Amino acid sequence: MRTGVWLVGARGSVATTSIVGALALRAGLTGPTGCVTELPELRGPALPSFADLVFGGHDVVDTPLPKRAEALAAAGVLPGRLVDALAGELAEVEAALRPAPTGGSPADRVAAVAHDLSEFRRRHALDRVVLVNVSATEPAPEPHPAHHDLAALRAALAGPAEVLPPSSRYAYAAFTAGCPYVDFTPSTGARLPALAALAQERGLPYAGHDGKTGETLVKSVLAPMFALRHLAVRSWSGVNLLGGGDGATLAEPAANAAKVASKQRVLGETLGYVPQGDTRIDHVAELGDFKTAWDLVTFVGFLGTGMRLEFTWHGCDSALAAPLVLDLARLTAAAHAAGRTGPLAELAFFFKDGIDAPTHALAEQWTLLREFVAGLHAGAA
Amino acid sequence: MRTGVWLVGARGSVATTSIVGALALRAGLTGPTGCVTELPELRGPALPSFADLVFGGHDVVDTPLPKRAEALAAAGVLPGRLVDALAGELAEVEAALRPAPTGGSPADRVAAVAHDLSEFRRRHALDRVVLVNVSATEPAPEPHPAHHDLAALRAALAGPAEVLPPSSRYAYAAFTAGCPYVDFTPSTGARLPALAALAQERGLPYAGHDGKTGETLVKSVLAPMFALRHLAVRSWSGVNLLGGGDGATLAEPAANAAKVASKQRVLGETLGYVPQGDTRIDHVAELGDFKTAWDLVTFVGFLGTGMRLEFTWHGCDSALAAPLVLDLARLTAAAHAAGRTGPLAELAFFFKDGIDAPTHALAEQWTLLREFVAGLHAGAA
Amino acid sequence: MRTGVWLVGARGSVATTSIVGALALRAGLTGPTGCVTELPELRGPALPSFADLVFGGHDVVDTPLPKRAEALAAAGVLPGRLVDALAGELAEVEAALRPAPTGGSPADRVAAVAHDLSEFRRRHALDRVVLVNVSATEPAPEPHPAHHDLAALRAALAGPAEVLPPSSRYAYAAFTAGCPYVDFTPSTGARLPALAALAQERGLPYAGHDGKTGETLVKSVLAPMFALRHLAVRSWSGVNLLGGGDGATLAEPAANAAKVASKQRVLGETLGYVPQGDTRIDHVAELGDFKTAWDLVTFVGFLGTGMRLEFTWHGCDSALAAPLVLDLARLTAAAHAAGRTGPLAELAFFFKDGIDAPTHALAEQWTLLREFVAGLHAGAA
Amino acid sequence: MRTGVWLVGARGSVATTSIVGALALRAGLTGPTGCVTELPELRGPALPSFADLVFGGHDVVDTPLPKRAEALAAAGVLPGRLVDALAGELAEVEAALRPAPTGGSPADRVAAVAHDLSEFRRRHALDRVVLVNVSATEPAPEPHPAHHDLAALRAALAGPAEVLPPSSRYAYAAFTAGCPYVDFTPSTGARLPALAALAQERGLPYAGHDGKTGETLVKSVLAPMFALRHLAVRSWSGVNLLGGGDGATLAEPAANAAKVASKQRVLGETLGYVPQGDTRIDHVAELGDFKTAWDLVTFVGFLGTGMRLEFTWHGCDSALAAPLVLDLARLTAAAHAAGRTGPLAELAFFFKDGIDAPTHALAEQWTLLREFVAGLHAGAA
Repeated sequence: MRTGVWLVGARGSVATTSIVGALALRAGLTGPTGCVTELPELRGPALPSFADLVFGGHDVVDTPLPKRAEALAAAGVLPGRLVDALAGELAEVEAALRPAPTGGSPADRVAAVAHDLSEFRRRHALDRVVLVNVSATEPAPEPHPAHHDLAALRAALAGPAEVLPPSSRYAYAAFTAGCPYVDFTPSTGARLPALAALAQERGLPYAGHDGKTGETLVKSVLAPMFALRHLAVRSWSGVNLLGGGDGATLAEPAANAAKVASKQRVLGETLGYVPQGDTRIDHVAELGDFKTAWDLVTFVGFLGTGMRLEFTWHGCDSALAAPLVLDLARLTAAAHAAGRTGPLAELAFFFKDGIDAPTHALAEQWTLLREFVAGLHAGAA
Repeated sequence: MRTGVWLVGARGSVATTSIVGALALRAGLTGPTGCVTELPELRGPALPSFADLVFGGHDVVDTPLPKRAEALAAAGVLPGRLVDALAGELAEVEAALRPAPTGGSPADRVAAVAHDLSEFRRRHALDRVVLVNVSATEPAPEPHPAHHDLAALRAALAGPAEVLPPSSRYAYAAFTAGCPYVDFTPSTGARLPALAALAQERGLPYAGHDGKTGETLVKSVLAPMFALRHLAVRSWSGVNLLGGGDGATLAEPAANAAKVASKQRVLGETLGYVPQGDTRIDHVAELGDFKTAWDLVTFVGFLGTGMRLEFTWHGCDSALAAPLVLDLARLTAAAHAAGRTGPLAELAFFFKDGIDAPTHALAEQWTLLREFVAGLHAGAA
Repeated sequence: MRTGVWLVGARGSVATTSIVGALALRAGLTGPTGCVTELPELRGPALPSFADLVFGGHDVVDTPLPKRAEALAAAGVLPGRLVDALAGELAEVEAALRPAPTGGSPADRVAAVAHDLSEFRRRHALDRVVLVNVSATEPAPEPHPAHHDLAALRAALAGPAEVLPPSSRYAYAAFTAGCPYVDFTPSTGARLPALAALAQERGLPYAGHDGKTGETLVKSVLAPMFALRHLAVRSWSGVNLLGGGDGATLAEPAANAAKVASKQRVLGETLGYVPQGDTRIDHVAELGDFKTAWDLVTFVGFLGTGMRLEFTWHGCDSALAAPLVLDLARLTAAAHAAGRTGPLAELAFFFKDGIDAPTHALAEQWTLLREFVAGLHAGAA
Repeated sequence: MRTGVWLVGARGSVATTSIVGALALRAGLTGPTGCVTELPELRGPALPSFADLVFGGHDVVDTPLPKRAEALAAAGVLPGRLVDALAGELAEVEAALRPAPTGGSPADRVAAVAHDLSEFRRRHALDRVVLVNVSATEPAPEPHPAHHDLAALRAALAGPAEVLPPSSRYAYAAFTAGCPYVDFTPSTGARLPALAALAQERGLPYAGHDGKTGETLVKSVLAPMFALRHLAVRSWSGVNLLGGGDGATLAEPAANAAKVASKQRVLGETLGYVPQGDTRIDHVAELGDFKTAWDLVTFVGFLGTGMRLEFTWHGCDSALAAPLVLDLARLTAAAHAAGRTGPLAELAFFFKDGIDAPTHALAEQWTLLREFVAGLHAGAA
């Protein structure tokens, strides 16, 4: 099952780490730490192997992939020995990358993306291509009537106005080209009724939003803990300090708002009420690809006794995100192969703000995921 | 369903808080925060109501219960207004307490306890009495052949030697008197083959060990998080600073060892390997009834990237333990009413080291608990 | 040396705690913990005793002082027994409070304040009155030419426009009435050339700004530690979560900006460079009179090795500020008695942003303070 | 002023980092971050330059220095490019190292060390040699009458019994060979009356004990902060998690005791009372050359309000210690050149437990150091 993985933001830290990691796994140079689909509970015949994955993608920057990999090695995110050993394979992937289309009408750019996807599938004789968005977080777009109606959207795209944010334009292009779509960012992506209609029309699955890699991952196990113990959370405040490109983007108020909303959802939906407190995101360039998050939770127990929990998470976002990108590509490809259409709510385990997620509690999301994957394997066997 | 709750250590902080809380709930003076059995998912007809609970107990100290309650109010553990409002009810419970039997052979002391339990049941016309051990943690006892055989144990008890530690002597007495037994401490309690045989013979259920109130509670959700994400935990070190009587007891090396073993179990059994690092317990009298625990977890993600999580838990052990004591008394009484015999593995949710616990992951323990309680309610309806 | 202490914001948490504390010290009901002027190195004849202090003040709210004290006792900031024991004395102070003047021209309000101060001095036969601003933090005012020239300021005040922010109007009134002025907040206060000229003209000392009670206190010892060890601080990020009225005020962006600037000054001036990172202030009502601050410092050592320090401060602002208010009133009164005029740079020990502070390192500030106080005592002996 | 630096434990992490760093400074390949003697306040003509330093030493292990440096580079403690660039210089230093003498009587081993020191001085035409002990921490030795009397010690050394621990034997040998001695560890070193007499007799200065690199450094600024603010510290608990050889040594109860005593001294001497709480040292091999320390301080402010501070220090011990080793070698050499004899109390700034330290407050220690160095420069000019 030869599977293309087309990364939007293909020269970013997450994409580069995903590609280096997949190549290293294929070459037997590293183990699958962090890859959920390699846990004994999920492994099986329905999923494409790492050797089955072929990478391509778009990016607006043009630093070649091998250079980006070297920079990540220098920053301690990737082992330098892997980058050296995989120089040839990285150059091959670099050759499969395409510049992000610019100029022309929105419809022209959609067509260019769809063309690149079809070409990639053809040239590499792939059974399917999954597009995964790992580019920078966008601000929420202005509402537009065409977001709600596929026919209206088709008409609007032909005009000169930017009716769709980039992440949604990529989703549109993916669906047009017959490709499943995964949004690893909090951007709009496929989250518009008109795009849902398009996916339905083409019989394609999609998944998102916003990979759950750090603070929210911890929240998704701590919030249920308080709920199951009937403890009343009074406030939950968090601050995220992050460097890198992502930090700079998220320091922009509009992108920040999208991310923060995504991060706080788990609390209200798990606890049944929204405690006081906010989540902050600050850019500290010095931290590079690492992120430090600090959360303070105050809560009340029996007879009103006040207590508190605080935690500090010091993680490398790329190292946490990359294996999940591979997991999502494999799972979405398998879902497509199995004929699944529409949003993959069973992948909520991977997301801060899973589409149609029936729960934000990690353990329940795990149960859903396990059952979903078992079904895929049963069908594949 | 009038249910007796007989507390060993009845004048300790946990017991006092449990009693004041139950009386306050009965009087409508407080809400059920912290009571797991009052969550919508578990509430129902099979459980005795708070008004159905009648308290008694043994203790080796003789400070009257109302005085202990006042001291806890002064320390910020109990609201002073509750202690004032419940003065009459507390005096009634005080009247039902008995001095812990001393002197005579072990068999004499067992008989005295069994007599007190039977008297309590008779005088208050109770359907059943559940004995809950909330006394100070004991060192692990010397192994003894009589621990493995009920007949040998009966014979040995008649002699002058101390063949059983106090917690196990209470379990023996409870079973003799037809009472279910719950061990909220890490002491030996009913965890001896001879006592299991006795419970079987008398058709009695029992539960334990070691109420999961703080650091281990957090571990029981964080360890599964690492496991489900396929992240490799390299070290997990913890320090517990606690004041109060419990702190002083646990600073004793032997009791400390029992507790620490109980605390670390969750890691090995959840992760499938034992990371480096120890759990320390230190006594800091200044902290009073509060406890501060700090844990450092170092872990490795994709491609070997090192990361870390630390958390600080600042909790009031009595406020966390007391509602669980009430939960356990209600659940064990209902299990007894339903004819359950032997260890209640489904109550692992409440314990650091649940007897026969099939899992140490909190979310899975919750599923087991919910199904167990649903069964009780179905039978009771 | 009977000394009046006139508090602007006299019914706020800090003022109430200061008053209750001074009364309790006078009555021998508490010890001087937190009072710097009671350290053996500073104690002496030049300072008015606690029994010498007489309290008055203005406030815009009218909840009586005894009620405020009871509320603080309920919140755990004051011991209830003190509030009960001092009921009579608190009622006396309440009788000395005046409503903050409103209406009329700025000059009218200045005159009303000056009148209240003179009346207070006369009625209580005081040697002097020190005005201490402990009211809510103001936004920085619009620049105005009259701020730079006393004659222009006098002319402008007679007009209808609000040329001065309230804190500066109080400073103006204090100087007019012959009273030294202390600004415990980051507001403008006496920090205008025209007001400096007025203080000079009247021969009055003044001090400020922004009492150093929590996170900045810690910074003022940690930043010198890094500097003295020649370690390069790369980033210093902080978040302050605080409830109470102060928290709500500081969540306003303009007041927040004033406070944050005051908090960051210590870093640049101590280290000689400004590391990356910001200080955030967020309002979390749930925290009440307590504040939690978390700071992350990343630094680099020999040969470029990256390291980090984080700290969490959980303090009660009123309990930390109140004894310093008493210290400042005593010290400023003594400086006035000794004939000191103009800004008291030697009091930088007490402030985040001391006027003319020659250093932001706490230990050096201590040396200055000790020498200053020794001079006062020598003069008084 | 050609100055020999003879390191006991010359192939350990601290020594290796010191040597690589000094060579890199000499070659202009790195800056003096972490070197206190390169601060503008201390720099000057009395101190030997980095180019003046010549390294030698003893060790019981025989992994060559260049190999140790490579291992430290792999662990992220040293930059690999430095180790590569300095390969030749490191090989030269390696050639100057001598195996730690074993066998023979104590007097024989003393003589062998003294011989090595003299040979080193002669061969490299050095003005003087400072011996710095950076070997593993020893347990406290059994008391012995010869420790108190030089003549008795000389007699005892000739016998077969081990009357001195290794650190003291090296101090004895250093003094015999006319070399100043610095103890960077908490071992006994020169801290025996008989050795003080020997240093006096030979007119030699010495310094120690126990380089202040992490948790205690932070304590030495925080404890004075509480004292200067008249806040009452109720408990101060700390845990140190460390890997590397030092961690393993310190996990030994006897060495641990020596270290912990050294660490707690600052509290009692700075606060004037000893708060509750202990300092723990645990070995966590996974942490390698890094150390994580966590401290919890509970304290009481005005009117008895309870508050708390906690901090986490994540440092690299070698990177923190190495520049101080160079500082101490330079300062002790300059003191020797200036004719100073006996303990150098003015170097308390560098030590957890400075010999004859008049204060444990870092800022006061800095003042002493600055004055001391100014005196040296004045004498040298």
